Amino acid sequence: MPRIAFKQVTIIGVGLLGGSLGLAVRKLRLAGRVIGVGRREASLLAARKRRAIDAYSLCAAEGVAGSDLIVLATPVGAFERHLKAIAPSVAPGAIITDVGSTKSLVVRQAQRILRRPGMFVGSHPMAGSEQRGVDFADVNLFRGATCIVTPTPATNKAAMAKVESFWQALGMKLVRLSPAAHDRALAKVSHLPHVLASLLMLLPGEADLELAATGFRDTTRLAGGDVEVWRDIFMSNRPAMLSAVDKLDESLLRLRDLLEVGDAKEIERLLAKAKLRREKRILPRWPQ
Amino acid sequence: MPRIAFKQVTIIGVGLLGGSLGLAVRKLRLAGRVIGVGRREASLLAARKRRAIDAYSLCAAEGVAGSDLIVLATPVGAFERHLKAIAPSVAPGAIITDVGSTKSLVVRQAQRILRRPGMFVGSHPMAGSEQRGVDFADVNLFRGATCIVTPTPATNKAAMAKVESFWQALGMKLVRLSPAAHDRALAKVSHLPHVLASLLMLLPGEADLELAATGFRDTTRLAGGDVEVWRDIFMSNRPAMLSAVDKLDESLLRLRDLLEVGDAKEIERLLAKAKLRREKRILPRWPQ
Repeated sequence: MPRIAFKQVTIIGVGLLGGSLGLAVRKLRLAGRVIGVGRREASLLAARKRRAIDAYSLCAAEGVAGSDLIVLATPVGAFERHLKAIAPSVAPGAIITDVGSTKSLVVRQAQRILRRPGMFVGSHPMAGSEQRGVDFADVNLFRGATCIVTPTPATNKAAMAKVESFWQALGMKLVRLSPAAHDRALAKVSHLPHVLASLLMLLPGEADLELAATGFRDTTRLAGGDVEVWRDIFMSNRPAMLSAVDKLDESLLRLRDLLEVGDAKEIERLLAKAKLRREKRILPRWPQ
Repeated sequence: MPRIAFKQVTIIGVGLLGGSLGLAVRKLRLAGRVIGVGRREASLLAARKRRAIDAYSLCAAEGVAGSDLIVLATPVGAFERHLKAIAPSVAPGAIITDVGSTKSLVVRQAQRILRRPGMFVGSHPMAGSEQRGVDFADVNLFRGATCIVTPTPATNKAAMAKVESFWQALGMKLVRLSPAAHDRALAKVSHLPHVLASLLMLLPGEADLELAATGFRDTTRLAGGDVEVWRDIFMSNRPAMLSAVDKLDESLLRLRDLLEVGDAKEIERLLAKAKLRREKRILPRWPQ
């Protein structure tokens, strides 16, 4: 990828993800200029002070003018509003992408709203933390993590190639999936775990919580995630989440039966299978 | 607590927990002698080499002779067999305790099998790790952790006091609960989280697992626990676990309804409540 891949990049939403993206784009000189768009001027000033952006605008339509890459980095629930706001002022050759954690609805909205639907390339860079805000932005947030790109038959091939090079330039590993396949997989490995962490956190009584140890702490870690971000993720991935919830419920009721009849052999088999799968598929990915 | 609290301590099961206990008892000189009992001579030799025990026996009845403290430290499912084996040779003034993660069944078994039921004091030192075996024993495993002691009206008061002093001497914080209250609380903060970690680990397809990130890793951490230990925990706490599973299932189906109708407000409320509770009750316990 050439040093300066884009003349000007606009990042809509300069929080932890958008801010980290700005820092990395500027450091790696992937754009001549980085414009931040947001609602609160204080955040944008903080972003400029941290050198995550060169300039900013409180108006999305104004902020995207003249940019050849536009990245949506707000919670997913605000995408539709931003897409509508920018549609009239997106430059003819500009590419639009996003960092949203769900894809079917987002891609549908973008292809419906934008004047050149093919120029939207859905992305899900799987990086983040429980922190929020540009104060926690990290220039290396994306390095080594996976980015899922979700083209459809309508996606412009050149735009897709350029978006993929962009994420690669940030040090990300690429995976290409359809929006629907993305949403089904993430419902199982990310959204449902978040649901369970939150429900588990609310289950014990006040006194019971005194007895929680590190196992409970780790199993409920995801419940500490940003409320607005996750509300939007849940709301924008309802069909896939419903099917993941149903599958989990089925396996929970099956385990309930095993407990009720006291089937030690089957319980042992289930625990052994889960442990083995974790040792084979999860542990090797995060070496000590 | 006096330097040498017991003439001789016998630890039945010299794995991670039993081995760590032996190391700590010997280091703190809480006993004149530590005897290890186990099935495999190689493990006992390893324990002696690590100085977790002074001597060993492959026979529980022989190993407890002359001891004034006996600690059951095998998986819970083997307790009944060991209690039957040692009952005839437990010395008249000897105290028996355990490190089992469930208490109702264990206390019932002990009070039924032992000749002096009052001398059994149920204990659950909440320390451990995913490792197993004496090779991973750690002299500081118990320090700073909580130990739940579960007396019943039949428990000898002097024996209970002595067991509580013993755990305190190891640096543990004490909590006193009835066996049933212990089991209900632990079902919610420990056993159910383990169930969910295992079920979650088995839910995604092979390809989906490629997309698992640190959130999935942490939520499924408990699924890496020892299979035999956890099978026994589940099997010995069935009534409390069934009720915890039912409560979780209820809240899962309620969330399913919220997803189905698309109730963003209520989903947000639930996520916010879980996040707040975690920040108030869990995070402060493990300062960075």
